[in-house]
Amino acid sequence: MSPVQPVETVTVDTGDTRYDILIGADVWADDASWAGLPKAAHAVIVTNTTVDPLYGDAVAARLARLHSRVTRVVLPDGEAYKDWATLNRVFDHLLGEGCDRRTVLYALGGGVVGDMAGFAAATYMRGVPFVQLPTTLLAQVDSSVGGKTAVNHPLGKNMIGAFYQPRRVLCDMSVLKTLPAREFSAGLAEVIKYGPIADDAFLGWIETHLDDLLARDAAALAHAVRRSCEIKAQVVGADEKETGVRAILNFGHTFGHAIEAGLGYGEWLHGEAVGCGMVMAADLSARLGGMAPEQAARLTSLIARAGLPVRAPALGEDRFLSLMRLDKKAEDGEIRFVVIDAPGSASMRPAPDALVREVIRAHGGA
Amino acid sequence: MSPVQPVETVTVDTGDTRYDILIGADVWADDASWAGLPKAAHAVIVTNTTVDPLYGDAVAARLARLHSRVTRVVLPDGEAYKDWATLNRVFDHLLGEGCDRRTVLYALGGGVVGDMAGFAAATYMRGVPFVQLPTTLLAQVDSSVGGKTAVNHPLGKNMIGAFYQPRRVLCDMSVLKTLPAREFSAGLAEVIKYGPIADDAFLGWIETHLDDLLARDAAALAHAVRRSCEIKAQVVGADEKETGVRAILNFGHTFGHAIEAGLGYGEWLHGEAVGCGMVMAADLSARLGGMAPEQAARLTSLIARAGLPVRAPALGEDRFLSLMRLDKKAEDGEIRFVVIDAPGSASMRPAPDALVREVIRAHGGA
Repeated sequence: MSPVQPVETVTVDTGDTRYDILIGADVWADDASWAGLPKAAHAVIVTNTTVDPLYGDAVAARLARLHSRVTRVVLPDGEAYKDWATLNRVFDHLLGEGCDRRTVLYALGGGVVGDMAGFAAATYMRGVPFVQLPTTLLAQVDSSVGGKTAVNHPLGKNMIGAFYQPRRVLCDMSVLKTLPAREFSAGLAEVIKYGPIADDAFLGWIETHLDDLLARDAAALAHAVRRSCEIKAQVVGADEKETGVRAILNFGHTFGHAIEAGLGYGEWLHGEAVGCGMVMAADLSARLGGMAPEQAARLTSLIARAGLPVRAPALGEDRFLSLMRLDKKAEDGEIRFVVIDAPGSASMRPAPDALVREVIRAHGGA
Repeated sequence: MSPVQPVETVTVDTGDTRYDILIGADVWADDASWAGLPKAAHAVIVTNTTVDPLYGDAVAARLARLHSRVTRVVLPDGEAYKDWATLNRVFDHLLGEGCDRRTVLYALGGGVVGDMAGFAAATYMRGVPFVQLPTTLLAQVDSSVGGKTAVNHPLGKNMIGAFYQPRRVLCDMSVLKTLPAREFSAGLAEVIKYGPIADDAFLGWIETHLDDLLARDAAALAHAVRRSCEIKAQVVGADEKETGVRAILNFGHTFGHAIEAGLGYGEWLHGEAVGCGMVMAADLSARLGGMAPEQAARLTSLIARAGLPVRAPALGEDRFLSLMRLDKKAEDGEIRFVVIDAPGSASMRPAPDALVREVIRAHGGA
């Protein structure tokens, strides 16, 4: 890869709106990245206590060139705070500072900050513009596309939210250097996912370049983020409101959600549970005949190399199954799985309980 | 008017979506009114403690023919409860009852119930279908069109919300018979409003038929509601996100909001404040040359006949002015007024403070 890296652009067109994801080594430092964003007197940075000390001042200084007033809301870090009470701190700030309908919100952080700032932007005065500055690999590949914003409710994750599109997403590869290894690997799980469900050649590329990715090589990362966003944009574009094909983006998530719920949310990172979930979903696909056993093994090996768990926690066979029946994709108690039909191609379907039990047993979940 | 009244239909087309407002004497009792609504196993009626005893059982019985399970959330009545805590009772119910993305919400009540149920529908699992069953004249003419949903924040009314369209609005004239006189008059204020801003002939019609309206004659009411919804749909259709012409719908509201805020919200009903606000805005229009003084007097007389206050509370001249500067339409402290330019035609513009002070003094506000 060339040492001077160009900025890669993915344009997302939802029909109603259109925005760019800019991806590159130093996208935030590049004046061109900020050109043409909504002009307003006031900008508000929504971030958290972990990210603010790292990037808050630099981003505020950058925004001071575009807005005459830049203020910050620093939220506590973690999924536990993705709730109404924390969201209300954003509203308190916006109202306390006299923000109007033109005020621009900048989401500076990972998925939780992006989801909350996005939902605040979707609902403050019935909608103000927002820009995403994702600081985790997971947020860059997963939250950049799809317009999903939400907070949790005590009775369920992401239960209250809106579809709302950002004006732009600026994915800066240099910020990934400060990401803890475990979180980086969790992000890789979602990158790897795009191979089996949509692009077998990309899976091969990841296998070849995994060491570059793990070394946080900016050019390799930019390619991985771009291709992930492109695939997601393509899938989501065919199905914005998640009624059909978009569900294939949940490959590995049915098993993964059971692991997260069974261990208690936060014990494993979401990406870790998805990594192990993909191992199990690949095995299920192999047992259903859509994936050659050696392809499933190849995927498992890649997931392990990425630093992700490949053996499920021993939740017990019955408990594992009943947790999966609570999955949002279940209908009338019938669990539905994203299954690989051929390399780079997936669909959603039910599977016989007996087969699912075999998979749970084979991977340590029983 | 004919004794057997047909159902009148206003079709609202927002570009993205399209829905019907059905208006008539016994719309809820008519099977045809409910045909073609979204099918789902579960329907949830969102209503309040005042409306539920009057219509809750009848609506639930009607819905039982369309949905295999009908549950109800009964909220406390009043603007004071239009907050997140009360909204959360709706979410608690939806999650507690295991409602999914297909569950249909029915808003049975006035503007507060409609705004809250609409916002719950907009955000529960990022959007579920909802149907409006407005039980006040104000909700029928004002909330049926525009897709505005919201809750209040301690620092401002309607500050958190979304634009979200219902699948259908069923305006039943017979339910207006139980509406208290004061609330009925408050609704008439918004009906009258459509005359000066958009349709001088409609203003004449209201003058001729005001006694029929006050007698709650179903045919007269249906015409008034239909014409109000038509005009609102036309104005909103030209400007869905409220960036320009839609602001003329706020005729009388700048003075009115100052009255509401100055007295403390709830002291006067919103429609009462708008009634008196229109008297003042008409006077301002006359002083600016857009309205003949006799036209302003004619409007004042109609507003008084409708049972609405035409003399402002003595808030004090300076306080009145400073309250108006807090209006959402103000820009950089400059108050902007909806002003009548000619019969049936309005626009928004600033006015000299001296002139506004004259108006405040002339109508008892000083």
